[in-house]
Amino acid sequence: MQDQLEYQEGRTEISHMGKVALIERLTADLETRNDTTLQGIGDDCAVVKGADGRLTLVTTQTLVEGVNFDMMYTPLKHLGYKAVAVALSNIAAMNGTPRQVLVSVAVSNRYSVEALDELYAGVRLCCERYDVDLVGGETGTSRAGMVLTVTAVGEVEQERITYRRGAGLHDLLCVSGDLGSAYAGLLVLEREKVTYQANPNFQPDLDGYDYVLERFLKPEPRMDVVKLLKAQDVVPTAMIDVSKGLADSVLHLCRASHCGCEVYEEHLPIDYQTSRVCSEMSKNMLPVSCALNGGEDYELLFAVNQKDYEKIKDLKEVHIIGHITEEGMPAVMVTPQNTTITLRAQAFQGVDE
Amino acid sequence: MQDQLEYQEGRTEISHMGKVALIERLTADLETRNDTTLQGIGDDCAVVKGADGRLTLVTTQTLVEGVNFDMMYTPLKHLGYKAVAVALSNIAAMNGTPRQVLVSVAVSNRYSVEALDELYAGVRLCCERYDVDLVGGETGTSRAGMVLTVTAVGEVEQERITYRRGAGLHDLLCVSGDLGSAYAGLLVLEREKVTYQANPNFQPDLDGYDYVLERFLKPEPRMDVVKLLKAQDVVPTAMIDVSKGLADSVLHLCRASHCGCEVYEEHLPIDYQTSRVCSEMSKNMLPVSCALNGGEDYELLFAVNQKDYEKIKDLKEVHIIGHITEEGMPAVMVTPQNTTITLRAQAFQGVDE
Repeated sequence: MQDQLEYQEGRTEISHMGKVALIERLTADLETRNDTTLQGIGDDCAVVKGADGRLTLVTTQTLVEGVNFDMMYTPLKHLGYKAVAVALSNIAAMNGTPRQVLVSVAVSNRYSVEALDELYAGVRLCCERYDVDLVGGETGTSRAGMVLTVTAVGEVEQERITYRRGAGLHDLLCVSGDLGSAYAGLLVLEREKVTYQANPNFQPDLDGYDYVLERFLKPEPRMDVVKLLKAQDVVPTAMIDVSKGLADSVLHLCRASHCGCEVYEEHLPIDYQTSRVCSEMSKNMLPVSCALNGGEDYELLFAVNQKDYEKIKDLKEVHIIGHITEEGMPAVMVTPQNTTITLRAQAFQGVDE
Repeated sequence: MQDQLEYQEGRTEISHMGKVALIERLTADLETRNDTTLQGIGDDCAVVKGADGRLTLVTTQTLVEGVNFDMMYTPLKHLGYKAVAVALSNIAAMNGTPRQVLVSVAVSNRYSVEALDELYAGVRLCCERYDVDLVGGETGTSRAGMVLTVTAVGEVEQERITYRRGAGLHDLLCVSGDLGSAYAGLLVLEREKVTYQANPNFQPDLDGYDYVLERFLKPEPRMDVVKLLKAQDVVPTAMIDVSKGLADSVLHLCRASHCGCEVYEEHLPIDYQTSRVCSEMSKNMLPVSCALNGGEDYELLFAVNQKDYEKIKDLKEVHIIGHITEEGMPAVMVTPQNTTITLRAQAFQGVDE
């Protein structure tokens, strides 16, 4: 008997490796044994054969208190809503429709039954909003804080499924909604928290920040965009959700699709409240940095064949931000001054890190 | 801004309510919105419409370090194996076959990359052993210790699915394998841990305890029993796995099936090693208590119509322990002295508590 975690020779720290390299190492050389398994690790969802010729999507997401959320400024009802929304966003990213969720929660005795009532009120609200059935779950005990796991199950027609791979040369690169606003909301909450901790009598003034706060605290999976694309009879060639900043999603999509891309800075959709929060924080905090490296927007990034340009160009919620370049080319951002910046992932540590 | 968890008036402690009542409160009055949802909360798995007329089973299970496992005596490879095995056991309990798993792990910086290699070696081994594909997962950060979540997806023919409900009057009540041995293994490990903590130079002697230790550290989902029943062309009328002691499972099955039952103490399968460990621990520690209230056996408890008696009576892995009585009757154990004891759930706090 001994502590197997200490005194290891040749120990490699997880922080030195990075999450993507780590999961690739842990899941390297997996073989598929079942013919119902159509997609394993490496996309927003696993894909298995489903009912009536459709495909079933499965994804799971764990949120840990103190890492992925801060109880100081996260209302429990919002947290329940967000936990489900984040899982549904992965279903949206496959161009699918969510149908069922399973929710597991482990809590310490700091939490009361009434606190869990609040959490589940949020879970139920999000399920209702997106016509999803809550079909499973358990409550358990945790040593410290709350651990929340949501598994989402969805479906998609075979001819509409959209993987991260599949983007073709000259495809248009599009993003829904706007970028960086959730991160701006987090910045505001963190600022107020610091002030409150210094002076507990302080009453935070959050007026005028409604949009960015809601973006952070109560994100919505872009099911409306999935429906809009269907109504326009457009199937993206590749898609991923934007959970860790645009740069990270662009790099994943390009890597899976074996291509490069050019993104135009002036075409990035950034809300004026996001810009205002950035300028309040520091003159070195650029809105474009929030868009590229802030996280938790839960927008959709997707590539569309040029032939579909007419169908998407007038969609209010869809912004064409660039195009796909050939394999071997890097993923770059072109500034208004026509300088080219190679994109790198530098996501902040948030949900789905 | 304030701590929303403190200073609550009328606060109800979770410990005062009990896990079953709590999850029932949190998920009361749920409505089903999707016609693909066939079974929601309240059984071992959620059931949704699947491919080729079959049914898809989904279940999720979270294990928390310090609550559900102790790193002092749990080898990481065993832990990975067990986490998958426990999820697969829920698929077995619906008479199904597991096909895919998604594994998420959150760890503190106490864990190295090599530690996760070990964990995943166990995950992979269990997947291989049961022909299951590892199709999803993420690694994340935890504030304290490890949190491990496994989602399992399986399938079952419509005519073979077995719920907790469905047991009929005079059905035979059966259990696979033996009971209480995992708990006996836990008792041995806890005893050695206490001795080791008092004297770190102490070398624990685990010789002669192989069976009970393996039962606790590396349980197997009873897929062999699912196959055996199929080979005999027997579909149980009701089934549940035994994760929190026999008493708990019997009570769940009877409640869901609206029936009572009689279990015969002398028919409970208890291994001689389990009995030996009990007598070593204390003269008040009865093997039958380990069987009824110890946890983590991951055996299958099921009811079978009397007409199938001939088909199951000679199966080595199946023990007939009693029979179903009518609605309104309690679930009782009959002792060799012919006294009747009403069963109550008093599971120890382990996995799937």
